[in-house]
Amino acid sequence: MRSIVVTDPPRADVGDAARLGDFGVATVHEAMGRVGLLDPAIRPVWPGAKVGGTAVTVVCWPGDNLMIHVAVEQCREGDVLVVTTNSRSTDGLFGELFATALRHRGVRGVVLNCGVRDTADLRRMEFPAWSAAVSAQGTVKATAGAINVPIVVGNQLIDPGDVIVADDDGVLRVPRADVEQAIRGSRARVEKEDASRRAFQSGELGLDRYGIRDRLPALGVEYLKYEDWAAQR
Amino acid sequence: MRSIVVTDPPRADVGDAARLGDFGVATVHEAMGRVGLLDPAIRPVWPGAKVGGTAVTVVCWPGDNLMIHVAVEQCREGDVLVVTTNSRSTDGLFGELFATALRHRGVRGVVLNCGVRDTADLRRMEFPAWSAAVSAQGTVKATAGAINVPIVVGNQLIDPGDVIVADDDGVLRVPRADVEQAIRGSRARVEKEDASRRAFQSGELGLDRYGIRDRLPALGVEYLKYEDWAAQR
Amino acid sequence: MRSIVVTDPPRADVGDAARLGDFGVATVHEAMGRVGLLDPAIRPVWPGAKVGGTAVTVVCWPGDNLMIHVAVEQCREGDVLVVTTNSRSTDGLFGELFATALRHRGVRGVVLNCGVRDTADLRRMEFPAWSAAVSAQGTVKATAGAINVPIVVGNQLIDPGDVIVADDDGVLRVPRADVEQAIRGSRARVEKEDASRRAFQSGELGLDRYGIRDRLPALGVEYLKYEDWAAQR
Amino acid sequence: MRSIVVTDPPRADVGDAARLGDFGVATVHEAMGRVGLLDPAIRPVWPGAKVGGTAVTVVCWPGDNLMIHVAVEQCREGDVLVVTTNSRSTDGLFGELFATALRHRGVRGVVLNCGVRDTADLRRMEFPAWSAAVSAQGTVKATAGAINVPIVVGNQLIDPGDVIVADDDGVLRVPRADVEQAIRGSRARVEKEDASRRAFQSGELGLDRYGIRDRLPALGVEYLKYEDWAAQR
Amino acid sequence: MRSIVVTDPPRADVGDAARLGDFGVATVHEAMGRVGLLDPAIRPVWPGAKVGGTAVTVVCWPGDNLMIHVAVEQCREGDVLVVTTNSRSTDGLFGELFATALRHRGVRGVVLNCGVRDTADLRRMEFPAWSAAVSAQGTVKATAGAINVPIVVGNQLIDPGDVIVADDDGVLRVPRADVEQAIRGSRARVEKEDASRRAFQSGELGLDRYGIRDRLPALGVEYLKYEDWAAQR
Amino acid sequence: MRSIVVTDPPRADVGDAARLGDFGVATVHEAMGRVGLLDPAIRPVWPGAKVGGTAVTVVCWPGDNLMIHVAVEQCREGDVLVVTTNSRSTDGLFGELFATALRHRGVRGVVLNCGVRDTADLRRMEFPAWSAAVSAQGTVKATAGAINVPIVVGNQLIDPGDVIVADDDGVLRVPRADVEQAIRGSRARVEKEDASRRAFQSGELGLDRYGIRDRLPALGVEYLKYEDWAAQR
Repeated sequence: MRSIVVTDPPRADVGDAARLGDFGVATVHEAMGRVGLLDPAIRPVWPGAKVGGTAVTVVCWPGDNLMIHVAVEQCREGDVLVVTTNSRSTDGLFGELFATALRHRGVRGVVLNCGVRDTADLRRMEFPAWSAAVSAQGTVKATAGAINVPIVVGNQLIDPGDVIVADDDGVLRVPRADVEQAIRGSRARVEKEDASRRAFQSGELGLDRYGIRDRLPALGVEYLKYEDWAAQR
Repeated sequence: MRSIVVTDPPRADVGDAARLGDFGVATVHEAMGRVGLLDPAIRPVWPGAKVGGTAVTVVCWPGDNLMIHVAVEQCREGDVLVVTTNSRSTDGLFGELFATALRHRGVRGVVLNCGVRDTADLRRMEFPAWSAAVSAQGTVKATAGAINVPIVVGNQLIDPGDVIVADDDGVLRVPRADVEQAIRGSRARVEKEDASRRAFQSGELGLDRYGIRDRLPALGVEYLKYEDWAAQR
Repeated sequence: MRSIVVTDPPRADVGDAARLGDFGVATVHEAMGRVGLLDPAIRPVWPGAKVGGTAVTVVCWPGDNLMIHVAVEQCREGDVLVVTTNSRSTDGLFGELFATALRHRGVRGVVLNCGVRDTADLRRMEFPAWSAAVSAQGTVKATAGAINVPIVVGNQLIDPGDVIVADDDGVLRVPRADVEQAIRGSRARVEKEDASRRAFQSGELGLDRYGIRDRLPALGVEYLKYEDWAAQR
Repeated sequence: MRSIVVTDPPRADVGDAARLGDFGVATVHEAMGRVGLLDPAIRPVWPGAKVGGTAVTVVCWPGDNLMIHVAVEQCREGDVLVVTTNSRSTDGLFGELFATALRHRGVRGVVLNCGVRDTADLRRMEFPAWSAAVSAQGTVKATAGAINVPIVVGNQLIDPGDVIVADDDGVLRVPRADVEQAIRGSRARVEKEDASRRAFQSGELGLDRYGIRDRLPALGVEYLKYEDWAAQR
Repeated sequence: MRSIVVTDPPRADVGDAARLGDFGVATVHEAMGRVGLLDPAIRPVWPGAKVGGTAVTVVCWPGDNLMIHVAVEQCREGDVLVVTTNSRSTDGLFGELFATALRHRGVRGVVLNCGVRDTADLRRMEFPAWSAAVSAQGTVKATAGAINVPIVVGNQLIDPGDVIVADDDGVLRVPRADVEQAIRGSRARVEKEDASRRAFQSGELGLDRYGIRDRLPALGVEYLKYEDWAAQR
Repeated sequence: MRSIVVTDPPRADVGDAARLGDFGVATVHEAMGRVGLLDPAIRPVWPGAKVGGTAVTVVCWPGDNLMIHVAVEQCREGDVLVVTTNSRSTDGLFGELFATALRHRGVRGVVLNCGVRDTADLRRMEFPAWSAAVSAQGTVKATAGAINVPIVVGNQLIDPGDVIVADDDGVLRVPRADVEQAIRGSRARVEKEDASRRAFQSGELGLDRYGIRDRLPALGVEYLKYEDWAAQR
């Protein structure tokens, strides 16, 4: 691996990132055409965390958090730190002291494909964190990695400066170039869902609302009374 | 797969189902002779959810929630929707809009072997849900499946109309024909456990209460003082 | 397996155990030189549980909790019950009645590499429990095992009388012989972390505080402006 | 669990079962409408094993193979023994001595959702076996179960007397009532695949052969030269 | 997802790809600086398969192999087909008929993050295949995806035209731009390993050869005679 | 972790170790009372490998094989190298060059809880290896560990000098103090199994041979003709 720290990559607008965070993962994911969701093995460390920010990316060696120390300096207001290990690890590369340092810089949260510790503190501090594991396993600071290069986390590519949206439903990447479209699409999606919600609350069926009933014959779906079905068995 | 919607299958009594829900999974499971528990990979989406209802069963294609739209119409007061995918999937086939539509019909909860999204909303609505994953991954509506046929979820067979009991300890199936016996057995179990609880609170040991001490010699169990054991090593 | 119950093994001081519990898993783990942490698959049953106690060890046959009944009698004030199954199992070997019996004896918590049930009750009772699974699956009482012999749980050796420290971050073993050193080391660690926390709150970087910046060139880490990096691609 | 041994359940014709075995899992699975495949976690113990036979079903307690001893007597020429444990287990419930006893009775193979041992012997004997694990872990003979009741293995229901088809691709259940149709469908499938194979060998594309090309516009698929795509990025 | 088929992306030289295939995964991976290896969950379908080719990339919907049919036409001599599903799936999206069609076009192998079937045929044909699962589960052809866009498989980014190297040790991506350097580095690595092999065959130790012994004191490693160590315990 | 290399620990007799290797894992495991088997996630790298030797134990940092280099020097004729990482890792810490160096010293095989690479070479060399993963992922040599201290691998304690028995069924630990008893027990077990095999080959049932039939009524097992059972449903 080439051990580089790329400084000051262009970032999406942090206000836009916050707006996407408010829409939430499920809405923005649909608005984006159902792409960009990180593998669901990456879960929130405490329930209710919700964030939208710009990605600072980090590659660490497994069992080693050296590069997170280096990365703190590269973070600024509105960022979300996104950490991958070069191969699978559950070790606790991130904890409360890092959260303290990042909060000082206005960082909005952290996403890791490995482990997190000091989880009671993170919850108390309301510092948003998503990870593949919770583990107190401590790490060394021996091997170099890279910062602000494109990385893969949870089977999704993330470029530095992309928007990261995360909540109880998981973690989503919105490419920097697609942010504007994502906001527009999310607005449209919210309106559509509001209308559907009202319809469902008054008893309309998705079967009719989405035109599914008419397609069922072509899809080969038959209706059978229980008695008739039971008689055929 | 034959793509059928079986309508109006006979259901267990919804009052009985609620009664079993009140007993809770661990109690009813013991009362049934320790069978019927779904694989523990299926977990509650929010802690504290507790339900007993009658199963409406759905088979979906992975990554496709078409048949859940079809299933809503087949649900009525007291039901629990039970969804399986034809092969493993973690996608979020179910979310808040479905919960809204189901609540309108008096449905008590949902159990899926795949994923759920809008989990913060489900928690806020207190709509009970159990699933194998939380994932915002959206789905298509392209491929047919089946409704109200016998399905397997979490390595357990479920017939439409069976009682589903679910809480923080997992999800249990009570066959429709066994509901009465399950209620009787659960009552007996609760009484027995109340007595045991009182006994344990006053210091009695299960070792004596359950007649285990007397069986230990036949089971080959020896007692050894630490010093004697350490000397033998 | 030799089926023995070793009685009255020497235990670490229960006051020391409580002290280590107060420091918490991450701190004591670092103080011990980053060893002794159980595999992160073993998780708290309810968030916020925190404990330090002395280990009473149990080996059960999978699907069988006979030996936990035998073990209750061997427990006393300040103990933590630690249960392993002879091979992988997710069954619910432990539940609320056991917690009631153990609480009567002053036991502080339980750690299992299998399953737990009655989890809503355990939470309500605030009885600390860590396990690899939550499952209502009931068990038999048919096959013997062993008590207070050295066991392996979560890929860590545990001797009876060792200190078990457990919280939201996982479960840690402190060998009885190392307790004093662990307390000393934890105190030093807390002081060091307090100082670091204050430094980070005022904007100092770990990069400087831990002397990492000076080591970066030797580790081969280069800094590159984004524009220069982009130009090279 | 009710501990019963159901004797002499009706079985599918063993000649038909062998015929389905010859077609192989992938072919019969397609012929059946893509249902009935056991979870792919159940794998062949040695490569090249291939079998079609009639199911004798067994429920064991985890870590206990008592009921397999009982089941041997219920097996006859053409059967495949199918074993499930009441909850997850990787223990080696089955080995070479069982294979020897079953071979004497004309049994064609074994499928288990737990573990197998003596695998080098099974391979040498060419005794077909599929399981979720290989493990030498020995078991007890302490707890009852059931034989020739409907069971669930690998998330599929299996009734005694059903046909089991298994090969390197996995394990398939064909309900007894569907055997004739499965044979007919498999023959048709083989003919269709033979024709497709010849077509593909001479360069025809599935895109054309299956009429996919014509559907692509409706599915929203566009073709773009690389240069044009690259220019848009 | 934008449903596009990008045609004729630039590819690495197929001769170079073959050369990298001959070096093998472990050697090229080291030569590249230990990056680019796909997650080890992706395994060869038959032992001994070994390949180097240029990537044609495919995104499929889970449970749906429509886009593989579309992709065949985009493949040419020297390619390796690389398939990802938009979310986790174990279904058998690829089998012998596809292998037949691809072989006709000179395609060298296939890598998928989902399932493969007809594995006995693939082995007999000696068609190289790597996948995350073996499963006969058949699929539909209902939902669009994309071809020759950048994809993530096994937690690694793959661009169309990149070199894929795969053997018994796993699957590696070599970016198109790095092929020349990878060849040079692999040659150097082979020479270095040949020399080390000869040294080790004559009894030299890596401890000395790699200068490790001299670094041990600085790393804090002490040597202790067993007797002395035992006396300290 | 204290970074020590313990030299020349007492070892079991290497002839005895070979003898246990010849008996094989399943036989010795039963002879030992069904204890000592490593978790079945640790699998042979190539089928047919079989070994008995004396353990040299190694603790590595994840992603780092420094200590294996140090360990080679501590190995001698008849040893089996046993490697654990301080936390979960799948990286390929071991490959062909190590096998070459170890073979020169008469080492009989290797067991790791992490990954192995160069697997085609290991198979060709017939160097026995068991691991939890196959992965080409290369490692660094940066962080110290320990050699010939007690370690846990696959959820089993292993002391240096213990006998390791491994074959296609898995990996077993025989404590040095129990070797003689293990050999005696294995001999008895082989005789007993030979007699059982002959009995089963001539049609005797385990049901009778092991006295199970007589215990069935007490275990609550009933026999029911299929017709009677079907009538009750």
